[in-house]
Amino acid sequence: MSDTINIGILGASGYTGFDLIRLSSLHSNVNIKYASANTNAGEKISNFFPHLNQLNLNTFKKWEDCNWDSVDIIFSCLPHGSSQDIIKNMPTSNIIIDLSADFRLKDPDVYKTWYGRDHEAKNDKILSKILESSVYGLSELYKDNIKSSNFIACPGCYPTASLLCLAPGVKSGMLDVNNIIIDAKSGISGAGRSAKKELLFCEVGEGAKPYSVANHRHIPEIEQELSKLSNDSDVKINFTPHLVPMSRGEIVTIHAKLMNGCDFNSLFDFYKNSYKETPFVKVLDSGINPDTLNVRGSNMCHIGLYKDRMDNSVTIIGVIDNLVKGSSGQALQNMNIRMGWDETMGLNQIALFP
Amino acid sequence: MSDTINIGILGASGYTGFDLIRLSSLHSNVNIKYASANTNAGEKISNFFPHLNQLNLNTFKKWEDCNWDSVDIIFSCLPHGSSQDIIKNMPTSNIIIDLSADFRLKDPDVYKTWYGRDHEAKNDKILSKILESSVYGLSELYKDNIKSSNFIACPGCYPTASLLCLAPGVKSGMLDVNNIIIDAKSGISGAGRSAKKELLFCEVGEGAKPYSVANHRHIPEIEQELSKLSNDSDVKINFTPHLVPMSRGEIVTIHAKLMNGCDFNSLFDFYKNSYKETPFVKVLDSGINPDTLNVRGSNMCHIGLYKDRMDNSVTIIGVIDNLVKGSSGQALQNMNIRMGWDETMGLNQIALFP
Amino acid sequence: MSDTINIGILGASGYTGFDLIRLSSLHSNVNIKYASANTNAGEKISNFFPHLNQLNLNTFKKWEDCNWDSVDIIFSCLPHGSSQDIIKNMPTSNIIIDLSADFRLKDPDVYKTWYGRDHEAKNDKILSKILESSVYGLSELYKDNIKSSNFIACPGCYPTASLLCLAPGVKSGMLDVNNIIIDAKSGISGAGRSAKKELLFCEVGEGAKPYSVANHRHIPEIEQELSKLSNDSDVKINFTPHLVPMSRGEIVTIHAKLMNGCDFNSLFDFYKNSYKETPFVKVLDSGINPDTLNVRGSNMCHIGLYKDRMDNSVTIIGVIDNLVKGSSGQALQNMNIRMGWDETMGLNQIALFP
Amino acid sequence: MSDTINIGILGASGYTGFDLIRLSSLHSNVNIKYASANTNAGEKISNFFPHLNQLNLNTFKKWEDCNWDSVDIIFSCLPHGSSQDIIKNMPTSNIIIDLSADFRLKDPDVYKTWYGRDHEAKNDKILSKILESSVYGLSELYKDNIKSSNFIACPGCYPTASLLCLAPGVKSGMLDVNNIIIDAKSGISGAGRSAKKELLFCEVGEGAKPYSVANHRHIPEIEQELSKLSNDSDVKINFTPHLVPMSRGEIVTIHAKLMNGCDFNSLFDFYKNSYKETPFVKVLDSGINPDTLNVRGSNMCHIGLYKDRMDNSVTIIGVIDNLVKGSSGQALQNMNIRMGWDETMGLNQIALFP
Repeated sequence: MSDTINIGILGASGYTGFDLIRLSSLHSNVNIKYASANTNAGEKISNFFPHLNQLNLNTFKKWEDCNWDSVDIIFSCLPHGSSQDIIKNMPTSNIIIDLSADFRLKDPDVYKTWYGRDHEAKNDKILSKILESSVYGLSELYKDNIKSSNFIACPGCYPTASLLCLAPGVKSGMLDVNNIIIDAKSGISGAGRSAKKELLFCEVGEGAKPYSVANHRHIPEIEQELSKLSNDSDVKINFTPHLVPMSRGEIVTIHAKLMNGCDFNSLFDFYKNSYKETPFVKVLDSGINPDTLNVRGSNMCHIGLYKDRMDNSVTIIGVIDNLVKGSSGQALQNMNIRMGWDETMGLNQIALFP
Repeated sequence: MSDTINIGILGASGYTGFDLIRLSSLHSNVNIKYASANTNAGEKISNFFPHLNQLNLNTFKKWEDCNWDSVDIIFSCLPHGSSQDIIKNMPTSNIIIDLSADFRLKDPDVYKTWYGRDHEAKNDKILSKILESSVYGLSELYKDNIKSSNFIACPGCYPTASLLCLAPGVKSGMLDVNNIIIDAKSGISGAGRSAKKELLFCEVGEGAKPYSVANHRHIPEIEQELSKLSNDSDVKINFTPHLVPMSRGEIVTIHAKLMNGCDFNSLFDFYKNSYKETPFVKVLDSGINPDTLNVRGSNMCHIGLYKDRMDNSVTIIGVIDNLVKGSSGQALQNMNIRMGWDETMGLNQIALFP
Repeated sequence: MSDTINIGILGASGYTGFDLIRLSSLHSNVNIKYASANTNAGEKISNFFPHLNQLNLNTFKKWEDCNWDSVDIIFSCLPHGSSQDIIKNMPTSNIIIDLSADFRLKDPDVYKTWYGRDHEAKNDKILSKILESSVYGLSELYKDNIKSSNFIACPGCYPTASLLCLAPGVKSGMLDVNNIIIDAKSGISGAGRSAKKELLFCEVGEGAKPYSVANHRHIPEIEQELSKLSNDSDVKINFTPHLVPMSRGEIVTIHAKLMNGCDFNSLFDFYKNSYKETPFVKVLDSGINPDTLNVRGSNMCHIGLYKDRMDNSVTIIGVIDNLVKGSSGQALQNMNIRMGWDETMGLNQIALFP
Repeated sequence: MSDTINIGILGASGYTGFDLIRLSSLHSNVNIKYASANTNAGEKISNFFPHLNQLNLNTFKKWEDCNWDSVDIIFSCLPHGSSQDIIKNMPTSNIIIDLSADFRLKDPDVYKTWYGRDHEAKNDKILSKILESSVYGLSELYKDNIKSSNFIACPGCYPTASLLCLAPGVKSGMLDVNNIIIDAKSGISGAGRSAKKELLFCEVGEGAKPYSVANHRHIPEIEQELSKLSNDSDVKINFTPHLVPMSRGEIVTIHAKLMNGCDFNSLFDFYKNSYKETPFVKVLDSGINPDTLNVRGSNMCHIGLYKDRMDNSVTIIGVIDNLVKGSSGQALQNMNIRMGWDETMGLNQIALFP
């Protein structure tokens, strides 16, 4: 079929990597040509991930052993740092969709502050050009730019949920951008798949706790985007993430203030209207609470809005699956947009409840 | 499209009901015409099950208010007892796929012993004829009969997993049918969706326990089928089910004895061969353990075989998602077989791991 | 031993009831004389709760069948409403420790607004006197009053955690009482033990969601107490509770503002000092995050304080076991205080981690 | 108080180590003098384990830096291998209670087969003497020997539960020792606290799976003890362990055969009688199912017996907390027995349900 493209995946042995395999294997226009994972090179993918064994997948490859010229789109599921180091070696002719944090922050100095290393864009011309020209891949907000870009930097999971909840209100000036408190709760997969004692079942099961309070790396990303949306260059937010004992799912509870002259009902109607046509974002009817279980495994984002007891206060709550809309699903959605295909191709899975 | 059929679902507000909706909504040849649920009649399905809200579903209907003549296939997701009572009223021209226990046992007296009520087939001619002519819908075993039957009685979840693990060995005479111990562990959804104290999160979370030891209702069903497969009319098994703290998934650990002259390697090869072509049953390579998480949400059954320390002993372990291969998925698989479609249509979801 | 007292428990078959049994059975000065539970009257307690079977417990009794004059302290673990209805019938000579919501709110009109029924104190002289004279049993705040009171109304779980986090800052005027956002997450036992569909394992397992946003019944209780602490009669808070998939445990994440002239370090030192001597409340060293798992099963409250990025913002996070410090444990602590015993008697259990 | 003894703990930073701290800190006759943990030496224990922060604990020490002569009893919570290597250096005057696997198997050749290394007892005289003279510390079976032994090798968690379930029947000759199938399910803490990918929350949460089928290291230990109990030198069992998604708890489901002439009721009565006086082992009344949640955190073992459908078949199901009765709790119970104290001292905690 003439529409079919070849894709390659860098760093396919982590959670976002194989969720990209899971989703793209059902996409009728996509052929997975390479799944690279250097530490696991040579292993049969279906032995490594027996849940994928009905697919006819090959072995993991070293990225150096793949012929990247023969693929149309490269997805990077590598950790930040590694992502830029390896992308530097990719053919410039490819479309690249990066799921790492490396190209989300436009200012390399901000990157250095939060990620503790220099961005290679400071030294490398190709990377510098990429950083400049890349689009921030929050599908619902930047669809037009995504259509024409060859480098898409997919947002982090928290920024995805937070910005979908905040964008209509901040862009329209209905919400006070300088008074935003985001209280987030994530399932454990948000912390990745490396073997750390603090992610063992017994350490996090049956417990809830905060982490990275006031210094989580998704903060500058949210602030950068809120600044763009509000034309206010110096936005600062409160962001307090927690781990709760579930594998997938993320809920952001946002406490915000209405600007003078706005009332809750107008805000609610405006949100309903803003997301009327978006296949993956639904503003829930009053009386229905968002629940991560209702979006688990799917690319959906559910948003609930609540009038608060305090004057001019509003609570906006959004839920996503951090590995799908918060990562691999949105990456595929961006591919669909970039290729001019129906935005929902390969992404019509319904949440696995219960 | 000429192939599209209309289906109706009886009892759509339980776990098997909405999982049938989840799966069939992605089946390109199926249109869900009715979802009946008498106690919830009139409620918008997408408010009741917000995880389905991207589908354009109607309200739940009373079954009496549906025009069943206008549907091609009726799925009954009602509890046993109710299922026969309502199926009695369905048009005889329809294909009926019953997910309840009402038509699995061929002998109404056995039904009475285990389910504590008379089977209406004793009094009602239509039901009697149905019971006689119905096929036991274990897809991999009875494909030919399913193709031509208008009433398919889908197996219980434990029998599905147990029989897929046992059929090749018992039918071939390699396993001793009179020495079978099935130690089963199920997620909580296996116990249904009614509001019972013993199914509350706090009562079953973080605990494991047996239930219905030696008297679970799936016992006569497994024994009936093993008798058929072995031509031994008086099979008795040990069956010990447990509840473990997860929502979906079921694992059966079967302790069996090899018949004289058989060795483990031949058995392993025979199983590998028996399930070489089945899209939904995979015998795992030696060294890979079955894990319910690797089949969650999918229609797959993974089987592992192990040689034991005791002479002539073998351990066969199977995992399924009790709501999919153990219920709604297999029902759709049977529909595909009955309609002459590709067996995997609408069922190619990959397990949601993690 | 002359110090030993007899206690009776009203409503002993719920989670707070048997946790009171669990804890008081290890208290060397306490003899459990009656455990009443009208719907389960006649059942052997150790069959109903096999985890208590090493204790020599009797059967549940109807409360009408107990001789309440023969007990020294009555604990009511009944639901609100029932609690006042039955307490009305208790001897006036007893010390009563009420774990329900019935006597927490001093204003019967506020009670009616939030609990949807008239408070009997409006018609009944004894109850009216009780309501007037009762002490709000937050042990650390009202120890002196508890010492001399014969009716102790124990706080709700959320108010316990929230007020322990807020009291030093609000009472001292270091925190702005009119700008308090409490984002709370509770394990499922917080919702009680009645058989409701929405509390089934499958409905809440692996999911996180808000509930009762801006209208939870613990709101007026927190506001009443913050008003007392601040001498500001009209405090309004934002309170947003969530359910997360664990059995026990509660975490409150409080976003507050420092008053002019206060800085974070002074606040931190003041908290450290305020809770220097309290056996059950610990302010954690900087760098240690509160975790519900670290207090599970114990009467401890851990508090963490964090400086925020936004100017003058502080995040205060507290964790408790909702059934212990949030309920039965604090009730026993109050008994110890009232009897003049060491506050920690019977309450030195260490958290069950993992 | 003259009865107070000093204890030292080797390897205190794992799950069994700190559960020993949790339990012994409430033991009125015990003073924890040292908690050694070489990799964490110097760290404040209460920062490492905040759930212990109400205890006045010191820092972890290197074992080389402790004065072992000054302690009365040494508990080794080290992994097998390390345990013998370090115990070699301990004063011979101490009582040693070893929680590792190093001294459970009397035959060093069997040890080598299953643990893959030579036992030092082959070369070292002290260790050789220890191995010879040590008692297998299953408290209920070997109380008399424990009373007079200076080296107690505590059983593994699976052997503890399995042998408590089997001992009365095997010793009395009522059960066929050559036909025993043990199907075991354990919470994740049974696999220890090292940072392995396969123990991450996301890898084991919401899934159930077998592991080490027919080759788990607890097999030779169970076989050794069954041989002793039955005077049959060549016992072989089937042992199939599974991991289920909970932190603590272990359930063994044992499928066994009655010997000729025995019936189920006699067996049941014999078990009831055998465990009539044991404070920590309870045979449940018929109709009550064992549940790991009912023993979590406590030193209890609950046993249920069930008559099976197959002739002469019986199912015996036992539950323990693997970290308590299966490890640290039994170690303390053995200390109590050795010291001539009440067996239950410090061990009267009631299970944490829910």
